Amino acid sequence: MSRNFAGHDAGHDAGSAQQHDAGLYATIFRRRDVRASFTGAPVPDEVMRRVLSAAHGAPSVGLSQPWDFILVESERTRASFWKHVQQEREAFAETLPPDRAELFARIKIEGIRESSLGVVVTYDSSRGDPGVLGRHAIADAGLYSVCLAVQNLWLAATAENLGVGWVSFYREAFLQELLGIPSGVRPVAWLCIGAVSHLERVPDLERHGWRSRLALEEVVHSERWGEHVSALTQGAT
Amino acid sequence: MSRNFAGHDAGHDAGSAQQHDAGLYATIFRRRDVRASFTGAPVPDEVMRRVLSAAHGAPSVGLSQPWDFILVESERTRASFWKHVQQEREAFAETLPPDRAELFARIKIEGIRESSLGVVVTYDSSRGDPGVLGRHAIADAGLYSVCLAVQNLWLAATAENLGVGWVSFYREAFLQELLGIPSGVRPVAWLCIGAVSHLERVPDLERHGWRSRLALEEVVHSERWGEHVSALTQGAT
Repeated sequence: MSRNFAGHDAGHDAGSAQQHDAGLYATIFRRRDVRASFTGAPVPDEVMRRVLSAAHGAPSVGLSQPWDFILVESERTRASFWKHVQQEREAFAETLPPDRAELFARIKIEGIRESSLGVVVTYDSSRGDPGVLGRHAIADAGLYSVCLAVQNLWLAATAENLGVGWVSFYREAFLQELLGIPSGVRPVAWLCIGAVSHLERVPDLERHGWRSRLALEEVVHSERWGEHVSALTQGAT
Repeated sequence: MSRNFAGHDAGHDAGSAQQHDAGLYATIFRRRDVRASFTGAPVPDEVMRRVLSAAHGAPSVGLSQPWDFILVESERTRASFWKHVQQEREAFAETLPPDRAELFARIKIEGIRESSLGVVVTYDSSRGDPGVLGRHAIADAGLYSVCLAVQNLWLAATAENLGVGWVSFYREAFLQELLGIPSGVRPVAWLCIGAVSHLERVPDLERHGWRSRLALEEVVHSERWGEHVSALTQGAT
């Protein structure tokens, strides 16, 4: 009922605070969107199994599990995709004012060829249809499920000391054609995944001065939009 | 290059397999979509800080961080939302054939009033605009980022021994009006979050016979759509 989130502190259920899983948080904050530090070393089969099992263990609307994962190692396929991405990079650069275009020119946006493999994640809206429980009012709920799987994959890969980079400089129709994805299935992500020399401590885009991270209190509201929670970040992780 | 994923096994980088973070996987597989086991006990402020920090630590397209989190504790607001969700539940039930409708009638779909609080997660497409890096070709990439934040929140809550349940039986316009969300901002999720008596081992919808989990190999392809990876699940987690 209180708008001041600090009001929550007093004495309830404090035990769980001691039990919290520092390892999970460490993985969450260590995770980076990797472009430049891939080594190209192969990822062992059993590691990929674990990472994909984590993705497949994500929640999904109506237990529809509408995701698929296409593992792309072919150098030819990756070269085709890379070429397309360069074109889209140029298309984006042309929309920028000169100072931003100059900054953008220095930022690496993908590790398609240097990563160990690509994992293309797709959304199949027909899975579990008709009657997907929880999707009649929000058609995009199935798409949301696919993204939850992506984040599980990303964290699992991070815990395995792998890097992941999400590439979104592409046209969906191009990727569909390239990998023979049926028309009812939508590509959601090309994830570069693989062994890395290191993970950066600061996100690339922040390091390059493209954009900064927001403080937590800027994005938390109490009860209604616009009622900010001033005390929230005191003592934050 | 190989279509048979088992071909990966031989001898590369096997060290990382030993280093993998069992705790992360345990959290990923323990996580459930909770409806029935909320106790209503308050969540301490510092726990919510950690959980929201985890969400806010998610990757986002162009580092746009397009998410907001509205913490809803008001009983009045929750009662209004609950009533709306009941209507949408009925609307969905009417679309089902008799046997599915009968099964659906036994399935609890939300814990809006019993959970400790609601966290409404939204997408603000104007954040970082114009020129969000990585979104010019795929407008939904911003929406995808918001879902990555949801999964971080979900896992962090699980690690804190809390339950989370995503409610999607609502019309976005209703929720927007209820919480005063501006027209350019889109509600993505109402998450019920809170202390729980326990987490189920098997997802509710599987336990009720609504739908089953798929085997991993059904959703993994090699190089192109439709080329399945037969050896993948041998020895899977």
